[in-house]
Amino acid sequence: MAGNTFGKLFKIMTYGESHGAGIGVVIDGCPAGVELDIEFIKYQLSRRRPGQSKIVTQRKEKDQFVIQSGVFEGKTTGTPINLFIANTDQRSKDYSHIQNTFRPSHADYTYFAKYGDVRDYRGGGRSSARETAARVAAGAIAQSILKQKGIEITAYVSQVGYLKLDKNYTELDFSRLEENPVRCPDLDLAAEMETYIKQIKKEGDTVGGVVSCVVRGCPAGLGEPVFDRLHAELGKAILSINACKGFEYGSGFDGVVMCGSEHNDLFYKDSEEIKTKTNYSGGVQGGISNGMDIYFRAAFKPVATIMRDQASIDKKGEEATVSGKGRHDPCVVPRAVPIVEAMAALVLLDAWLLHQAKI
Amino acid sequence: MAGNTFGKLFKIMTYGESHGAGIGVVIDGCPAGVELDIEFIKYQLSRRRPGQSKIVTQRKEKDQFVIQSGVFEGKTTGTPINLFIANTDQRSKDYSHIQNTFRPSHADYTYFAKYGDVRDYRGGGRSSARETAARVAAGAIAQSILKQKGIEITAYVSQVGYLKLDKNYTELDFSRLEENPVRCPDLDLAAEMETYIKQIKKEGDTVGGVVSCVVRGCPAGLGEPVFDRLHAELGKAILSINACKGFEYGSGFDGVVMCGSEHNDLFYKDSEEIKTKTNYSGGVQGGISNGMDIYFRAAFKPVATIMRDQASIDKKGEEATVSGKGRHDPCVVPRAVPIVEAMAALVLLDAWLLHQAKI
Amino acid sequence: MAGNTFGKLFKIMTYGESHGAGIGVVIDGCPAGVELDIEFIKYQLSRRRPGQSKIVTQRKEKDQFVIQSGVFEGKTTGTPINLFIANTDQRSKDYSHIQNTFRPSHADYTYFAKYGDVRDYRGGGRSSARETAARVAAGAIAQSILKQKGIEITAYVSQVGYLKLDKNYTELDFSRLEENPVRCPDLDLAAEMETYIKQIKKEGDTVGGVVSCVVRGCPAGLGEPVFDRLHAELGKAILSINACKGFEYGSGFDGVVMCGSEHNDLFYKDSEEIKTKTNYSGGVQGGISNGMDIYFRAAFKPVATIMRDQASIDKKGEEATVSGKGRHDPCVVPRAVPIVEAMAALVLLDAWLLHQAKI
Amino acid sequence: MAGNTFGKLFKIMTYGESHGAGIGVVIDGCPAGVELDIEFIKYQLSRRRPGQSKIVTQRKEKDQFVIQSGVFEGKTTGTPINLFIANTDQRSKDYSHIQNTFRPSHADYTYFAKYGDVRDYRGGGRSSARETAARVAAGAIAQSILKQKGIEITAYVSQVGYLKLDKNYTELDFSRLEENPVRCPDLDLAAEMETYIKQIKKEGDTVGGVVSCVVRGCPAGLGEPVFDRLHAELGKAILSINACKGFEYGSGFDGVVMCGSEHNDLFYKDSEEIKTKTNYSGGVQGGISNGMDIYFRAAFKPVATIMRDQASIDKKGEEATVSGKGRHDPCVVPRAVPIVEAMAALVLLDAWLLHQAKI
Repeated sequence: MAGNTFGKLFKIMTYGESHGAGIGVVIDGCPAGVELDIEFIKYQLSRRRPGQSKIVTQRKEKDQFVIQSGVFEGKTTGTPINLFIANTDQRSKDYSHIQNTFRPSHADYTYFAKYGDVRDYRGGGRSSARETAARVAAGAIAQSILKQKGIEITAYVSQVGYLKLDKNYTELDFSRLEENPVRCPDLDLAAEMETYIKQIKKEGDTVGGVVSCVVRGCPAGLGEPVFDRLHAELGKAILSINACKGFEYGSGFDGVVMCGSEHNDLFYKDSEEIKTKTNYSGGVQGGISNGMDIYFRAAFKPVATIMRDQASIDKKGEEATVSGKGRHDPCVVPRAVPIVEAMAALVLLDAWLLHQAKI
Repeated sequence: MAGNTFGKLFKIMTYGESHGAGIGVVIDGCPAGVELDIEFIKYQLSRRRPGQSKIVTQRKEKDQFVIQSGVFEGKTTGTPINLFIANTDQRSKDYSHIQNTFRPSHADYTYFAKYGDVRDYRGGGRSSARETAARVAAGAIAQSILKQKGIEITAYVSQVGYLKLDKNYTELDFSRLEENPVRCPDLDLAAEMETYIKQIKKEGDTVGGVVSCVVRGCPAGLGEPVFDRLHAELGKAILSINACKGFEYGSGFDGVVMCGSEHNDLFYKDSEEIKTKTNYSGGVQGGISNGMDIYFRAAFKPVATIMRDQASIDKKGEEATVSGKGRHDPCVVPRAVPIVEAMAALVLLDAWLLHQAKI
Repeated sequence: MAGNTFGKLFKIMTYGESHGAGIGVVIDGCPAGVELDIEFIKYQLSRRRPGQSKIVTQRKEKDQFVIQSGVFEGKTTGTPINLFIANTDQRSKDYSHIQNTFRPSHADYTYFAKYGDVRDYRGGGRSSARETAARVAAGAIAQSILKQKGIEITAYVSQVGYLKLDKNYTELDFSRLEENPVRCPDLDLAAEMETYIKQIKKEGDTVGGVVSCVVRGCPAGLGEPVFDRLHAELGKAILSINACKGFEYGSGFDGVVMCGSEHNDLFYKDSEEIKTKTNYSGGVQGGISNGMDIYFRAAFKPVATIMRDQASIDKKGEEATVSGKGRHDPCVVPRAVPIVEAMAALVLLDAWLLHQAKI
Repeated sequence: MAGNTFGKLFKIMTYGESHGAGIGVVIDGCPAGVELDIEFIKYQLSRRRPGQSKIVTQRKEKDQFVIQSGVFEGKTTGTPINLFIANTDQRSKDYSHIQNTFRPSHADYTYFAKYGDVRDYRGGGRSSARETAARVAAGAIAQSILKQKGIEITAYVSQVGYLKLDKNYTELDFSRLEENPVRCPDLDLAAEMETYIKQIKKEGDTVGGVVSCVVRGCPAGLGEPVFDRLHAELGKAILSINACKGFEYGSGFDGVVMCGSEHNDLFYKDSEEIKTKTNYSGGVQGGISNGMDIYFRAAFKPVATIMRDQASIDKKGEEATVSGKGRHDPCVVPRAVPIVEAMAALVLLDAWLLHQAKI
């Protein structure tokens, strides 16, 4: 209810602040008997980690975690899993200048309006994207379980500023995704994006981007009708990621100019499987998966922290200047890739588990 | 959990099928002492109603409702409100041809995959957009309550096919919105859209569109952090509307090409109020309202039912033809306007109520 | 959240007032493909129905219901089921005397305190036990499904005032339960109870009682640990029934005088089944069913409406007299039997469904 | 859903096992701006702590906690609070004998039936009463907040085996409750109880008891109608405590022999307050508080672990002997007192917060 809890059957509650003791997550509802893939959790965290390349924030967090419950002899027991990541490289004094001042397009003012004058202003406190490390860890566990069921989730960067990847995911080779720090599967474009991000960074500025995601191997029948449609749950999950401003699946906003006669996905039978010839539906019809690939796109705004002075006001409503300090990302999408995968995995595992609850 | 329930404090459960006895909604959590604005409920239903103009489906439903509980002497008592709308003009035999066949891009196949061979195929059964009448009725009650709190929600059509309204909502005059059947505030463009929809209809085809929405008067502090961000809840609510393929708020997908230095909304004080000079944030920062207008856009695909023959398969997996029958909308957005308002109202009232739960 | 919703996977929302249009329930999450046992729903309603015998209230309600959604050709479709029971014999003017006065030990004052001066005072409005008809209908559907899974629920009256049935359920013959209007399986004691209730009624008074319940055939493994223990969910469900003042399962309050050495249930193997020699645990250990019979007892207070004058106060806080009017039960337990079964069924089906949600 | 989460607005998720790294709780929804009363949290934990006296288990846990989030400069910020208590005195090898054997009346078998062969058998793992330390910590925070609102919760031991305190709470002096290790406010009876527990312990046996609780200062109007009645929520909360077998409030099971004419609580006005002359209702009518004291009783069975050999079976279904080892309580009620208070506080704070969510 208070917003830090996600999921119904595979339910997570995250906690922690950017400059506090650390961040963590408790998972209530992880199935029993799952052999935890610790290496995969580490891998996903390393992809989200600050300091991983020159185009991301230089805060040095190793994001080492401890698991304090719910796992016995390497396997989940069905009881809650608490996973904790200590903060190690917080430089809280970097933030003393914003103790009383609201940074533009950050959550400083809205938290002040909501919670009153008791907020942990250091690094944005709870509103910091550092919270997403907890999501990535929980999501990695969900991803591992889904993988055993044949469901694979792959996100990638498809746009940085005006540099846009105009290919459909089916034409892309994801095997070399990690060869460039941007996580764009088109390596030429990735190089351009990298250069662009570096230039933007040099200017003390930031830029937005798009993360695309495809889910393969999802069986038909997942998702609930009416309000909890699979794509609506995915939408909420993705929109809850810091800096996300939009979500579309299947044909998305581009589909509005199409006619029904071209947009409709015709069914056919491929050996024993029911498929559609096109997939403008994005793998979901009436809110329920139809067995085709699920794909969606998420828009991310330019990071609000820039290395320039900006006019603002302080708590008393008086004019103040916010100067650009701290260590921040010039573009959020390279690090958003594993977060998008994590959120998608949390939604899909929940839908998968719920789908078992039949007579 | 099973998808037909929405909201936390102002919680609704909708029920009913397109060709059954009717559709309805129970509201659990409507505050006590609210004088029900029956005329406004009727008005909103009339805007969603089939047969309202020549550019929508010609099914004749008056959508007359009865309230069977929760209201005493014209006022809500705090107990559940059941509102029921009987179906009167269903022509179920129109659908006998799809009893065993899956219509392309409909929910026929996915419901079959999820629930087995027991579905009410008539008019799409539960997956029909007829279900949204229940949302509109419940949403109208929420809208009335919000209005008393100074929060006003206005949706309108901003795109039909390639015809796009390229003005910001601040430049528009909503007073004449109902003068054209499309519900586009630019009357010249509206006329073009109307002509276009008629032409599409003549061709037995359908087309998509965009509904935009603005929320004025929302105080700062509404919405929860992390997973239940106000815009994420709005996103889920809007994406749960039939045919919706995308949601964006504030700068949305267009914002990804911007730099932080132009995208950041600078705070200033306007007499006693804190405002921002621009509003790319769309009235929400860190998932919490900041007191500025909240605005968002929703993409709707072309209606799947077209008046043409289409190749498909049947329940046994054999090839079949779906012929275009029944009464349907050539473009869904004119009727989607009150539905978008309803869903936004449900989210905002929930956030408003939750915001009161403080010490 | 607002209290009229129950269950997680098999979720119900009830609505309606004692003297309004009627009462009803929407079930969101009923599995698809269930052949509805209409006769069993009617049977259970007839056991709860007023006017069924001389020892219950003489209000004449046939409790005929209509099912308005979620069922197609006799089978559930997985979509919400709305079941509505119209009120037919309300005599609202019987209640004009309590429009402004608080009846002792009723909910008049507390509803006034909670919702303000807008309550439907007629017959207690929403707080009337008439609401339980909706539970019985939904519970009957759950009972039918459980029965198919081999789980049978039987409730009976084990105490009326000081007349107490001192036998364990294992010694009782339930086959003749319906032969007496009290629903006590010991027919001699039942006759005594009947006489006692008639005498109490003659005196214009009321008396309390106990309903016992046994669940047979529940497999091991149902229920969740820690907060949502199976017996805690049962306890909440049963305590939510009007007039219920206590719940105990297994050894209950009597168990507190026992020593661990006698109370512990020793495991043994009976052919291939694991059983316990005694069953003080009441079929639940650590909140999870162990495969033995689940049994519990529920205490019901004497009905608050008596046919005597009572001193009270009115809305303005002034002294007033509440005179005994209307048609009421001298003892609630005979009619509570199917309600207890219904609530137990709702809890167990939910636990059963949740138990399927595994990998 | 998976059972380790409690509450709606003040929501907690507990985690941890008896012999793992430790136990903890995350609170999502603690209001902002609360000055944490660390001493009171410590005090309540010390009352639950093992080793506190000679009549409780001699495991030496100091139950020192760290707060890792949600608190800034001593005050809550409205973000999740993670409170962790490390285990320090686990002696896991004490449990190797039960790795494959099911202890009678413990949760060993049911966890095995539910989760499969992956359970942390050491000390009962998650099913250990050690989990309740997390509840006590969270509950202490809730109690502090309620105290500021004038709501005080006091639990005490009212029965140990056959030794029963036959006085009403209104006749008791709670000021000397902590002077005896049993926590019975009648010091003479307390001394008898202490002697009895010591004797039972000497015999290697255990005994049950009753904890009573009174809530003073609760305003009228708290609690929801129908399913979420205040006493039903209290019942679930209390029944979820390890070893609890029964719950009754107000007149409880004793009330069933009473007549309505004596059981009804007559309203009167005491200066400006509305009160009742008697309080058989236990402060709750129709599920909503009426402003009078709320009181209830909870039955606890004898602890299952006894220092004697018991016949049982092992995982393979073969006969096995469980010998009495480890450090355990001869009677659970002295340590249950702060747990009962904690659970009551969680329910009442939730009801209190929900009561604010009005227009």
